[in-house]
Amino acid sequence: MVEGDKMARELLLQKEFVVEELYAVEPWLKSHFEKNVGSTLHAITVSEAELRQISSLTTPNQVVAVVRMPKYNWQEASWSNWVFYLDGIQDPGNLGAILRIADWFGIHPVFCSPSTTEVFNAKVIQASMGAFLRVPTVEIKLEDLLKLAEGRPAWGADLNGEDAFSTSWPEKGVLVIGSEGGGLSQDSTSLIASKVTIPKGSQGGAESLNAAVATGILCAAFFKQHRNL
Amino acid sequence: MVEGDKMARELLLQKEFVVEELYAVEPWLKSHFEKNVGSTLHAITVSEAELRQISSLTTPNQVVAVVRMPKYNWQEASWSNWVFYLDGIQDPGNLGAILRIADWFGIHPVFCSPSTTEVFNAKVIQASMGAFLRVPTVEIKLEDLLKLAEGRPAWGADLNGEDAFSTSWPEKGVLVIGSEGGGLSQDSTSLIASKVTIPKGSQGGAESLNAAVATGILCAAFFKQHRNL
Repeated sequence: MVEGDKMARELLLQKEFVVEELYAVEPWLKSHFEKNVGSTLHAITVSEAELRQISSLTTPNQVVAVVRMPKYNWQEASWSNWVFYLDGIQDPGNLGAILRIADWFGIHPVFCSPSTTEVFNAKVIQASMGAFLRVPTVEIKLEDLLKLAEGRPAWGADLNGEDAFSTSWPEKGVLVIGSEGGGLSQDSTSLIASKVTIPKGSQGGAESLNAAVATGILCAAFFKQHRNL
Repeated sequence: MVEGDKMARELLLQKEFVVEELYAVEPWLKSHFEKNVGSTLHAITVSEAELRQISSLTTPNQVVAVVRMPKYNWQEASWSNWVFYLDGIQDPGNLGAILRIADWFGIHPVFCSPSTTEVFNAKVIQASMGAFLRVPTVEIKLEDLLKLAEGRPAWGADLNGEDAFSTSWPEKGVLVIGSEGGGLSQDSTSLIASKVTIPKGSQGGAESLNAAVATGILCAAFFKQHRNL
């Protein structure tokens, strides 16, 4: 389910996602709906009250689209040099923010453990600000991923690893990000070649960073060394 | 309001925040409450059902504390070389995540525009994972802040600025972070000495990064050059 004016417009402009149904208030349909799109689409005019009942947004909304989950032929698709493996990310806001990071730096696909939150959860879609339209995601076990990773080593984000800012990042790799509460899973830990840590300031006190923030900082660390992702 | 076992325990261990009242289920009070703390504290046993009515947490909770907002004498306190100015951050999750970044790198205080979400909002407290206990925050206009900033230039996060990874960051400064939807405010833009941009990957597509993620990446960029914050 894709909600809100901005994302619905972005959705209609691309071709990889099939819109099954579209529910919108009349003014939205009139002003945004192109005739040629309308002819192939199941668009339904609803009242604001009806929309409120089907939408998860708290702010007033104008449109909700029901979209077919894409079938992504990832085994034939190209990978960026560095890819993410999300090892149990729970918070939809974090998952959406991580998709935006992948989109920004051009990292693809994003691999997710079976324990990671469903990517097509409405809150993830919302937090991704459209990044879900551009960043393919694949659910897979880390063990299976590494068999296909063409020698990319697994580097895990951890509290006790090498300094992420001074370490020498390989040109390619799989960055493994643990869950918000528990960090890297036991299964993953045994498969990890190196652990990296974001160094703390001398007066720093926090126990941890938000998982999406940590992903962004680590991504920036290897991007800084290898701009050509 | 500070909710949940972990944060309540952290709260009781420190002395700067005054706990006015504490509502907890009986097992929590029995197992976590120290006798000497209890004697000076207004602790009230509540049922799980009652707690559910006063708590904003969706997961089962055991304790809620009502805490006096601290009076922070920031004009006499020390500043880290770099400080943050939050120019209209709206999302409580982002604000909490930014407090964790400040806590991690030792940045203090965190300055907030009047348009930024209230720091003592329960959702901010929750997302900060205890960082609010360590990172003092100050509401102030950027104009007034810069008068007190002892020559620290204001550097703004923007989509059209210098490359944050290759620019030469000054030793001290004020990093200005705009709002999620609108970026830097007009008032701030006129006060900014330099704009910095997180470079995109060659295949990057996103319009923007999450505000907390961008803050973390920029913070890492100057921290990498000047470890001594």
